[in-house]
Amino acid sequence: MAEHSDPRPPASETLVTDLAEALRSGKYRALAQAVSLIERDDGRADRLLADIYPATGRARIVGITGSPGAGKSTLVASLAKYYRGQDKKVGIIAVDPTSPFTGGAILGDRIRMADLYTDRGVFIRSMATRGFLGGLAKATNDVVDLLDAAGFDIVLVETVGVGQDEVEIIRTVQTNVVVLVPGMGDDIQAIKAGIMEIGDIFVVNKADRPGADRTVTEVTMMMSLVEEHGDWIPPIVKTVASTSQGTEDLDAAIVKHFEHIQSSGELDRRNRERVRIRIETTLKEKFISRLRAATPDFNAILDDVLHKRNNPHDAAEALLARASFE
Amino acid sequence: MAEHSDPRPPASETLVTDLAEALRSGKYRALAQAVSLIERDDGRADRLLADIYPATGRARIVGITGSPGAGKSTLVASLAKYYRGQDKKVGIIAVDPTSPFTGGAILGDRIRMADLYTDRGVFIRSMATRGFLGGLAKATNDVVDLLDAAGFDIVLVETVGVGQDEVEIIRTVQTNVVVLVPGMGDDIQAIKAGIMEIGDIFVVNKADRPGADRTVTEVTMMMSLVEEHGDWIPPIVKTVASTSQGTEDLDAAIVKHFEHIQSSGELDRRNRERVRIRIETTLKEKFISRLRAATPDFNAILDDVLHKRNNPHDAAEALLARASFE
Repeated sequence: MAEHSDPRPPASETLVTDLAEALRSGKYRALAQAVSLIERDDGRADRLLADIYPATGRARIVGITGSPGAGKSTLVASLAKYYRGQDKKVGIIAVDPTSPFTGGAILGDRIRMADLYTDRGVFIRSMATRGFLGGLAKATNDVVDLLDAAGFDIVLVETVGVGQDEVEIIRTVQTNVVVLVPGMGDDIQAIKAGIMEIGDIFVVNKADRPGADRTVTEVTMMMSLVEEHGDWIPPIVKTVASTSQGTEDLDAAIVKHFEHIQSSGELDRRNRERVRIRIETTLKEKFISRLRAATPDFNAILDDVLHKRNNPHDAAEALLARASFE
Repeated sequence: MAEHSDPRPPASETLVTDLAEALRSGKYRALAQAVSLIERDDGRADRLLADIYPATGRARIVGITGSPGAGKSTLVASLAKYYRGQDKKVGIIAVDPTSPFTGGAILGDRIRMADLYTDRGVFIRSMATRGFLGGLAKATNDVVDLLDAAGFDIVLVETVGVGQDEVEIIRTVQTNVVVLVPGMGDDIQAIKAGIMEIGDIFVVNKADRPGADRTVTEVTMMMSLVEEHGDWIPPIVKTVASTSQGTEDLDAAIVKHFEHIQSSGELDRRNRERVRIRIETTLKEKFISRLRAATPDFNAILDDVLHKRNNPHDAAEALLARASFE
């Protein structure tokens, strides 16, 4: 990218090149190192990501979204084991702060997932830490790219589905699975909150509990109220993730959905949207630092707002008026 | 703001002026209408916010942060009732998607909070819906402004404390209360995840449970490891929110913290930070729409990234290079 008069690239450049190479050949340790660069917001992360970007585009990216307590992590673990049985490499990215993968763990969950942690065909990362520069959505997409370039077949992204970051993340997956549980008053609330429109597949987990069929009926009814489905009608899959019941059905639904969006052109649309969001997210962060650098009187502008001589909205407008576009 | 040759302002302008006036005089219905404008991202919301901005700055803004299940909402309800006993007006903004205020309610919680819902001195709003244009943090700050201008004395903002939006929200409150519960393995994890540094006050809720004193000890120990506290040592308050036990102590801690940051200059610093974040958040959104309008070949750029001829990072850089700053 950058031009150097010295033919021998500096050490950091070598590191990035070597790391990219090791990553593409699927080295687990390189992957862990690369993720660390992103987490530390190391300056070399962007160059690494640019380097490996052409090797991306093969992984299936599946979102698993639902309220805390719906059993998302158990479902993710169950799916991961299923894919491992097919010798597929599985990435797990936990964005939900209450996910057992994040550490908000009940001991039983941890034990159930222990074998995943020691399997080199599984890469687990929690993104629920504070302060990713450039945002959680960008960091999540970057890690998806790393996993993709490292030859991971499937990346499962676990989110609560609320908040701008998470909505951005959901908009960048290929298939979104919404997980509900029977007998919880918040199912209908979640549906009201708009989760209905983002679900490509609905799972009624803990389906051995009373009320599972009622939840299925409720989802079916709510679905009939949603105007726009295109030609895909989201299936409803019953699972008991703790015993892996229904995992195969869920995988079948995911495969079917992927084939559908591939043939209908929806996959292209989603991939485009993913790229658009990624470019814009990066742009926003870079714009702010550029503008700040070009605004020596930023503090005076800030003072005006602080002392009510101006308001945040008009201050932003005035600052933006200083930037001109080609 | 805009100039009109017709001396009679158009209907929408009258609406904003009237609404701002009604809001400043504390009319509950005006407040509800104004919040709706923000939620719908109505074009008039910005003008209304600019209009009422000079009337802001009196409310105390308190964040209540903690994992789902920690009892934040019950604590918020208990604080709200306490303030109502002092005839203070209380705003409650629930950002946590699992908050009973949001609808993820257990029936008992709802009943416990029922009297708050019918009290015109309490305004409750859940922000846990998808798709606030300009982001959840911006919308939350805007609603805080409305409550502030409407004469609300205290605004309690309930968050999980994870994700960029929520971290942004926490950075804009005056006092942040971190809620922990005894006997949950995730306490220490939450602390590790950085919650330690954001707490001005720690609450060990459900303090009638076994292990409460151990949690207090753990927090005290972790606190000694945090390098930077300034001259404020966060107190640890034990509460049983469901019986209002400890609520008075918590209020006392909040008052004490406010007096401390007021006299130490930290309040000014936080208010400045709040203004900075608000300006920058608005700037980012406006920049993107401006840049898009000035980039007719945006789709071609997007195609290049989609087909791996370019990567998102370099595409963003190239786009940014088209904007010039005074």
